[in-house]
Amino acid sequence: MGDEEQKDKPAASPSDRIPGGHKPLLRCIVKLGGAAITCKNELESINEEILESVCVQLREAMSKSANSSSGNVVSMDWSKRLGKPLVSAPEEFRNCRSLDLDSNFIVVHGAGSFGHFQASSSGVHKGGLNLPLVKAGFVATRISVTSLNLEIVRALAREGIPSVGMSPFACGWSTHGRNVASADVSHVISALHSGFVPVLHGDAVVDDLQDCTILSGDVIIRHLSQLLMPNYVVFLTDVLGVYDRPPTDPHAILLRKIAVDEDENWMIVKPKLQHEKMGVEITVAAHDTTGGMKTKISEAATIAKLGINVYITKAGTPHSLRALRGEVDDAPDDWLGTVICSSKNSIFQNTGGQV
Amino acid sequence: MGDEEQKDKPAASPSDRIPGGHKPLLRCIVKLGGAAITCKNELESINEEILESVCVQLREAMSKSANSSSGNVVSMDWSKRLGKPLVSAPEEFRNCRSLDLDSNFIVVHGAGSFGHFQASSSGVHKGGLNLPLVKAGFVATRISVTSLNLEIVRALAREGIPSVGMSPFACGWSTHGRNVASADVSHVISALHSGFVPVLHGDAVVDDLQDCTILSGDVIIRHLSQLLMPNYVVFLTDVLGVYDRPPTDPHAILLRKIAVDEDENWMIVKPKLQHEKMGVEITVAAHDTTGGMKTKISEAATIAKLGINVYITKAGTPHSLRALRGEVDDAPDDWLGTVICSSKNSIFQNTGGQV
Repeated sequence: MGDEEQKDKPAASPSDRIPGGHKPLLRCIVKLGGAAITCKNELESINEEILESVCVQLREAMSKSANSSSGNVVSMDWSKRLGKPLVSAPEEFRNCRSLDLDSNFIVVHGAGSFGHFQASSSGVHKGGLNLPLVKAGFVATRISVTSLNLEIVRALAREGIPSVGMSPFACGWSTHGRNVASADVSHVISALHSGFVPVLHGDAVVDDLQDCTILSGDVIIRHLSQLLMPNYVVFLTDVLGVYDRPPTDPHAILLRKIAVDEDENWMIVKPKLQHEKMGVEITVAAHDTTGGMKTKISEAATIAKLGINVYITKAGTPHSLRALRGEVDDAPDDWLGTVICSSKNSIFQNTGGQV
Repeated sequence: MGDEEQKDKPAASPSDRIPGGHKPLLRCIVKLGGAAITCKNELESINEEILESVCVQLREAMSKSANSSSGNVVSMDWSKRLGKPLVSAPEEFRNCRSLDLDSNFIVVHGAGSFGHFQASSSGVHKGGLNLPLVKAGFVATRISVTSLNLEIVRALAREGIPSVGMSPFACGWSTHGRNVASADVSHVISALHSGFVPVLHGDAVVDDLQDCTILSGDVIIRHLSQLLMPNYVVFLTDVLGVYDRPPTDPHAILLRKIAVDEDENWMIVKPKLQHEKMGVEITVAAHDTTGGMKTKISEAATIAKLGINVYITKAGTPHSLRALRGEVDDAPDDWLGTVICSSKNSIFQNTGGQV
C-alpha cells in the first residue's frame, strides 16, 4: 500500500531542527511492530515478555534521571487485570512532585495477530461497505485492533508512561483511493502538549473512493513524521534490521547504514559490500495485509529523505534501548540494527563539509 | 457540571424537521446510563444481563423487518472472548445481501463503576496536569472508560449492530473552563454516513483553562443533539424515569410528561398533580463525579427546548424498547417513563393549534 502513496504533504525543512537549537516538540516516533509484540501465529495473542521489555526500555529512554531503571516506577493503570492484584496508586503519586520523564514520544503499533484475520477474511482493504461482509469485517477489525491498542496503552501505563490511546479512525484519519486524504494531527499535538504519549495504531478507516480500507501503522508514521518532524524514528521489529537477502538465509548480511537520496535511491554506506549495485531482498509475511518489511523500508526511506534518521532494530534487545535513546546515528559497530538516513546527512557526516 | 455550561452553539431549527419531510440523517441518540449497564458498587463490573438486553432492543429498534428478533443475528465481533467459543462469521455474511438495519443511531454511555474511582481519587475533574497524581489519574481514567467502551462496542457488534468506538478525547473534544470548547463532530457524521453506529462515552479530556476535566456523557449528548438534531433522544437508566421526589420514597410519583419552555421552566403535563408549583427532588449518586439525575434532567431540558423529545426510562424493560423505537411521544398510559418535550410541541399537541 505504501508504494503507490502520494508523497504530497509539504514537510517542515530539516534545517529547522538545528542541533543545539531549541528543542523540537517531538523527540521520537516509535513503531512497535505487530510481529514483535504479538505472537504472529496465534490469533490475538500478545507477546507479553517483549511488550513489557519494550515498555521498560521506553521508560528508560524517556527518563531524565541517570538511574532510570530503579524500582520506584508507579503504575498508571489502576484497572482490574485478570488474575492480577488490583493496583491502586493514588497515594504513591500524592507524594510525587514530578514524573521526571521527557515523554515527548509518539507510539504507533501494528496489528500482528490482531485485526489481520478479521480484515483479510472480509476484504476490508478492498473496500465496499455496501457489502455486509465488508461492513462486519470493518467492525470486527476495529474491535480487534482497538483491543490490542488498549493492552499496549495499559502496558505503557504500568511502566509509569502517561499513555493515551488515539485510534486513527476516531481521530478522523481517512483515505482517498487508499492514500491518506485527511490526517488531522491537532489532537495528537494537543495530547503531546499536555505531556501525554499518544498511542496510535494501524486501523480500518473510511476511504472516500472505495468506502473503506486498512491504514497501516507504517503509513501513519510517515505522515506523522512529515507533519511533526521528530528528531528520530525507531522501528522495532522481530529481526535485527534490514538484510541484503531474507534474514533466514545464513549468508544474509545486516545492512548497518543506508543513505537515501532525493530520488529515493539507496546507497549502502555500511558495511562496504563487494558487489557494486545491490538489491535488497526482503521478506513479506504472508498474512500481512498492509505489506511487510518492503512497505516499512519504503516508508522509512521517505522519512529519512526529510532529514530524520530512522533506526530499525529488534524489539527487547540492548540494541532497541540504544535506538530509543537516539544514540545510534553513526551505526556503531557494537550496535546491531539498520540506520536509514538522508544521503545529505550521510555525506555531511563523512566529509565534515556542507553539501 | 452541566448547570453552568454555556449554551452557545446555534442549533438547526426544529422546524427543519418537518413531519413527513425528508428523513434527517440521525434518528436517535441513546444514552446508556452507567448505573444501568454496570454494577455500581463493584469496581469495573458490567451488568451483562442489562447490557445484552439493551443491545437486543437496539437491534430490534433498528430493524427494518417486522420479525426483528429472529434468531439469525450474526455477530460482528470476531475476537476472542474469555471462556467463550470463537465467533468467526465471514461465511454467514458472504451470503447476506443487506444488514436490513436502519442504523442511524448514536450511542453514548456513561462510566458507572468504570472510571469514577480513578477520576475521583485523583481529582481529574479539578484539573492540574502538572501534578503527577492528576496526570496519572487522567491516564488511569481513560484506560478504565475505554475498556468499558470496547466492551459495549463488542456487545453491540455481537447483536449485529455495526458499532464503532469513538473516544471523545481522541476525537478532539476539549473544554474551556469545563464547558465544551471544541467538539468536532465531522468524524461522527462521517461514521454515520458510512452506516456505522458511533459509540461515544464520558471521558477525561483536555481543558484549556484548567488542563483537564471530565466530560460527562450527558453533556456530550446535549452537544451532539444541538449539532445533529436527532428525531429523539433516549436516556436509559436504572429507574423508570423522573419522579417528584427520590424514587426510594414510597410516595414518589413518576412524572410521565414534562414540558420545558424557552427559559427552561418546567411544567408537569402528566400526571395532573394537585399541588400548584412542584419542585422535582432528585437523587444524586454519591460517587458520580459528573452529576447524577440532576445533570441528566438539566441536559434533557436543553435538548427538549430544541424541539427534540427526550425519553427517560429504565434499561432492559419493555418500556425501553418502545422508547428506542420512538413510539412514546404521547407518554401512553401503559408506558412507564418520562417524556421531556418543548412546551411549544406540548401545547401544539394539546390544542392542535400553532403557537
